[in-house]
Amino acid sequence: MKAVVYRGPGTVAVEDRPDPALTGPRDAIVRVTATAVCGTDLHPYRGEVPQFEEGTVLGHEFAGTVVEAGEQVPHHVGQRVFASDIIACGRCRACARGMHYHCASVGLFGSSALVGKPVDGGQAEYVRVPFADIVLHPTPDDVADEQAVFVGDILCTAYAGVEAARIRPGDVVAVVGAGPVGVLAAACARVAGASEVVLADPDPRRRNTPVGRVVEPHELSDTVRELTDGWGAHAAIEAVGSPAALRGAVQAVGPQGTVAAIGVHHADAAPFPTGTAFAKEAALRFVVGNPLAVRAPVLALIRAGLIDPTILISHRLPLSSAVEAYSLFEAREATKVVLSATDGPSAGTGR
Amino acid sequence: MKAVVYRGPGTVAVEDRPDPALTGPRDAIVRVTATAVCGTDLHPYRGEVPQFEEGTVLGHEFAGTVVEAGEQVPHHVGQRVFASDIIACGRCRACARGMHYHCASVGLFGSSALVGKPVDGGQAEYVRVPFADIVLHPTPDDVADEQAVFVGDILCTAYAGVEAARIRPGDVVAVVGAGPVGVLAAACARVAGASEVVLADPDPRRRNTPVGRVVEPHELSDTVRELTDGWGAHAAIEAVGSPAALRGAVQAVGPQGTVAAIGVHHADAAPFPTGTAFAKEAALRFVVGNPLAVRAPVLALIRAGLIDPTILISHRLPLSSAVEAYSLFEAREATKVVLSATDGPSAGTGR
Amino acid sequence: MKAVVYRGPGTVAVEDRPDPALTGPRDAIVRVTATAVCGTDLHPYRGEVPQFEEGTVLGHEFAGTVVEAGEQVPHHVGQRVFASDIIACGRCRACARGMHYHCASVGLFGSSALVGKPVDGGQAEYVRVPFADIVLHPTPDDVADEQAVFVGDILCTAYAGVEAARIRPGDVVAVVGAGPVGVLAAACARVAGASEVVLADPDPRRRNTPVGRVVEPHELSDTVRELTDGWGAHAAIEAVGSPAALRGAVQAVGPQGTVAAIGVHHADAAPFPTGTAFAKEAALRFVVGNPLAVRAPVLALIRAGLIDPTILISHRLPLSSAVEAYSLFEAREATKVVLSATDGPSAGTGR
Amino acid sequence: MKAVVYRGPGTVAVEDRPDPALTGPRDAIVRVTATAVCGTDLHPYRGEVPQFEEGTVLGHEFAGTVVEAGEQVPHHVGQRVFASDIIACGRCRACARGMHYHCASVGLFGSSALVGKPVDGGQAEYVRVPFADIVLHPTPDDVADEQAVFVGDILCTAYAGVEAARIRPGDVVAVVGAGPVGVLAAACARVAGASEVVLADPDPRRRNTPVGRVVEPHELSDTVRELTDGWGAHAAIEAVGSPAALRGAVQAVGPQGTVAAIGVHHADAAPFPTGTAFAKEAALRFVVGNPLAVRAPVLALIRAGLIDPTILISHRLPLSSAVEAYSLFEAREATKVVLSATDGPSAGTGR
Repeated sequence: MKAVVYRGPGTVAVEDRPDPALTGPRDAIVRVTATAVCGTDLHPYRGEVPQFEEGTVLGHEFAGTVVEAGEQVPHHVGQRVFASDIIACGRCRACARGMHYHCASVGLFGSSALVGKPVDGGQAEYVRVPFADIVLHPTPDDVADEQAVFVGDILCTAYAGVEAARIRPGDVVAVVGAGPVGVLAAACARVAGASEVVLADPDPRRRNTPVGRVVEPHELSDTVRELTDGWGAHAAIEAVGSPAALRGAVQAVGPQGTVAAIGVHHADAAPFPTGTAFAKEAALRFVVGNPLAVRAPVLALIRAGLIDPTILISHRLPLSSAVEAYSLFEAREATKVVLSATDGPSAGTGR
Repeated sequence: MKAVVYRGPGTVAVEDRPDPALTGPRDAIVRVTATAVCGTDLHPYRGEVPQFEEGTVLGHEFAGTVVEAGEQVPHHVGQRVFASDIIACGRCRACARGMHYHCASVGLFGSSALVGKPVDGGQAEYVRVPFADIVLHPTPDDVADEQAVFVGDILCTAYAGVEAARIRPGDVVAVVGAGPVGVLAAACARVAGASEVVLADPDPRRRNTPVGRVVEPHELSDTVRELTDGWGAHAAIEAVGSPAALRGAVQAVGPQGTVAAIGVHHADAAPFPTGTAFAKEAALRFVVGNPLAVRAPVLALIRAGLIDPTILISHRLPLSSAVEAYSLFEAREATKVVLSATDGPSAGTGR
Repeated sequence: MKAVVYRGPGTVAVEDRPDPALTGPRDAIVRVTATAVCGTDLHPYRGEVPQFEEGTVLGHEFAGTVVEAGEQVPHHVGQRVFASDIIACGRCRACARGMHYHCASVGLFGSSALVGKPVDGGQAEYVRVPFADIVLHPTPDDVADEQAVFVGDILCTAYAGVEAARIRPGDVVAVVGAGPVGVLAAACARVAGASEVVLADPDPRRRNTPVGRVVEPHELSDTVRELTDGWGAHAAIEAVGSPAALRGAVQAVGPQGTVAAIGVHHADAAPFPTGTAFAKEAALRFVVGNPLAVRAPVLALIRAGLIDPTILISHRLPLSSAVEAYSLFEAREATKVVLSATDGPSAGTGR
Repeated sequence: MKAVVYRGPGTVAVEDRPDPALTGPRDAIVRVTATAVCGTDLHPYRGEVPQFEEGTVLGHEFAGTVVEAGEQVPHHVGQRVFASDIIACGRCRACARGMHYHCASVGLFGSSALVGKPVDGGQAEYVRVPFADIVLHPTPDDVADEQAVFVGDILCTAYAGVEAARIRPGDVVAVVGAGPVGVLAAACARVAGASEVVLADPDPRRRNTPVGRVVEPHELSDTVRELTDGWGAHAAIEAVGSPAALRGAVQAVGPQGTVAAIGVHHADAAPFPTGTAFAKEAALRFVVGNPLAVRAPVLALIRAGLIDPTILISHRLPLSSAVEAYSLFEAREATKVVLSATDGPSAGTGR
């Protein structure tokens, strides 16, 4: 089969790989019809993850069709499905609490050993899905594969961030970062009843979004204060992963405001304004996101037409153009690229 | 001044009354510009409240302008304001917890001794507002008086019901009762992210609402089950106040679903399906509503254009036509009547 | 093997049955060392459940040792374990939300078809445990089997009730019913920080408990009001399952108080005081209980010495004396009977 | 009257001051019977607050008796009372939400302009209490003045921290810092059902507490992991106010653990381990504390004998020995000093 393979900083390649096979009763093999490139995929591409192993099949956002299923997997061959970005056993004490990201057997598709044990990714014609009885979810008829791809990762992260931010209908919400995750978080905040959503991003190419006003980062705090008679945002969502973004979110919220940090944070000693956070009695909730916990309501939102993540897609390319896809995405010429792994059109009618 | 006065079952009259005067430093006098007839006003009108005292000035939904204010009241003369339907001291242990309805000094405008001590109502040219420092709220410039009238009562009740129902974006929500409160609850549920709202009402005149599908009560349970693959509604709001409505709401919800009961309940021994509630592990939350606790986010929703309660208004009449207003409302020929207590147009631009 | 078998109203018998065998990879066979008679077992015994099938092996509270395990079961032969009273698949949409009682494959050990499909009970020398990978939990070395028996059912129910009652340290808590479940609920309420716990029970034999004062049901409301300067209980736990008990709990709580109903309710039209519940804005949460969700913190409480459910045990008898055990328990001469299914002493040191 | 006055870094003095007088209808004058020195008082004493004005009457922890009351104050002359450490108007949008610390008129007794506007402190024979209708609370007969002093500040902070930490009965809790606030937080965590509480403090003089084991800071993380089979603490309370303490708390908690930061934080760029916090999906809640919101349940805990804050008192001295008191406390020779402002014994029997 064809697969997108990591070949060191700045280099991906579309290579021939052996078709994957079942290794146990909870495995399934999925023929991939749609798969996306995620901001997380860019970290090794930019050389920021030295230990990322060359030869890794990339990709953790994918949807497709079951072509083979172990005996413990309740999905039949031919079933349209999408995967969670992470795998988890579903039975340990972490999974029992709905904390699948903290499962002892956790893994992130296509990410080398970044999270748990390596498991080959979904930017390929076929992919083996471990713990497929819980990792896979049927794709409803009225949801397109390219919509489902988002439910397997960033749309659920955005939704989880909004839940963590404890938004009450009528609240004014600040979102730091207007990339794909920030835009989806803003969309989710609107759906949750935010009366106003203000995004902040320094990149002028990210000034126009369909989900809320975008201001310069230094304007965020004043803008939300104006909208709230000086109180500050009731909640903020940090969707970048940098100390500066986190500071901006803390500065934006008002008394006892909540900051949901859904950006990927790596720092051991990020400069953090504890004085401001204390004076405001702010709450700060770090959220990795877990499609296994929230994909059901997220699918309902798509089916009801309340959210359509495909507004983010700027490019639809065949899997064979993956090299171009990474290059466009890295250069921010693409907002979001979906790769079509098969010749025919992506299934599902969408809305 | 002119005032709408209760004269026994089936009878209201517009009568001359002395203008009210300040009685203490926390009082204010409000010149009423808009006031509405509430379903609660119909209970004495229908003779259901024998102890309701004749001569009571009616009305607990009103907005207007401050014409006189005690020294502890922070609103200046000329300030546009609306009142909470209830008065509360703001200082006792109940108020300190935000439970103003349970204040030792609670009262409901224009309701005789139904709730706490009697206090003359707002269906009048002028009204004395006790504890005006907390009972009154400024009406923002971009909110019309006839919008503010709803924030003083049923829109906040609807909002509180939706909060109590713990709706998560994407949920399917059942609303029992498609009267004014049910329709506003459905509107609030949509704003809170419900993917589907299904209302139930036996009255064919209530079949068309702008906020969700209305079905026959006996169809509700099956309808929400179809929408949820058999699970049942994630939450239900009971907006009638009868045992049958409560039963319908319990039957509609799925496992561990929450029923928020915002209808006014009086029964001492209402037949209740405890077996079903137990089998489902349902939660049941009775909510009177408290504008003092939620009017700020509710105003924000109106100002953002996310909710407009005036969709309910079927009739706008002068205060002098109050007799007709009660008659129309009782006969369900009016959905909601707003009385204009002054000659000029109601202030505020609204949206 | 020997097993306690239901033989119609008023009759149980200790009979010979074939040893159970594995039927699939998620099954385990447990040699039972301790098993208790639960109040729920008395319902068929009293003839209250006509459809209860004769020949059913009884019992849903048991602990023991794994003697055989399917390949998907992570517990080794010889491992001390206890079971949850219910079985659940662990993978469906209900289980994924931690609502195992609402699993499509739910069953209650030893209860005929009362809950889901029949599954033979644990009042026997051996028992087959379906979905043993999640239904069984290792018994820690410092927890005795006769303690673990309670963690599989009523102690977790009591704990869940206390969680549902939203007790805040310092609260005054009312518990309606001073049977085994009520006493454990009172113990859990104390552990959660209740400053006072008042139980109510009409049975004079239940007046002495180690966990709180017991009053007559008609005294409950006044007693908690005295303790709270007239406010009422902050929370109440109903541990009987009757309409009268539910009413007593609603009457006991103060404004916005929560009633957790952990008694087993069957009624279709129980007389319920909706007027009082509305006036108080009470919350009512029905809780079946789910050891799978809360057994971990409950075990921690036992291990820390903060709760010891064996205070309830009045009789320890061999399995062969099951007939006497049922008779004593039904007559309320026994508080709680634990049957020892094997000759040797129960394992575990306890505390 | 005699009062303890700040005279620059390292210097306090007991000086003669004019007796305070009422300035409005919400004021009261309290004759102080017991007042304590708080860790916060040491910041100016150590010269850490250059802008702290010389001549300030110190002290925000005090109890006593009303000797004069404005007409809006519901406490009669002779009533035993204690004050909240902060003053707040009780009517603004912050107060209406129970966020009194964020009141536009907030102030902290005896703290110069550290928090809001200056208001003379309670380390004096008499003190003027603004907004006395809400700032003062009656001291129950069975609560001693020296107990009430703690309810006005650090015991409520500890309680609020435990509430913010979302402790579930059975949880293992880490407390960073074994000073007065940390010890009270540990006591509150126990009351809330923690199965184990582990404190960390580098000071060998703080190794013995009546409320939990104290370990070296570097041992904390391993200790809680051992107690939880490797999971980590379910919650942590940071009671120091330094970046290192915050880091220790984040390191101690397990997946999705909550850190309640009740130490006083000042930093603008404290090094913070965002990578660890993200990987754990930790929540961080900064809590200043607000006696106005939680003093009722805290009093109930004292009255029930579940918490006795006087275990912290190492020295009881007359007000005239304030110089010695500050010196002892600064040198950590005193754990907590209570000053008696009057000749007679402190009122109240306590328990």
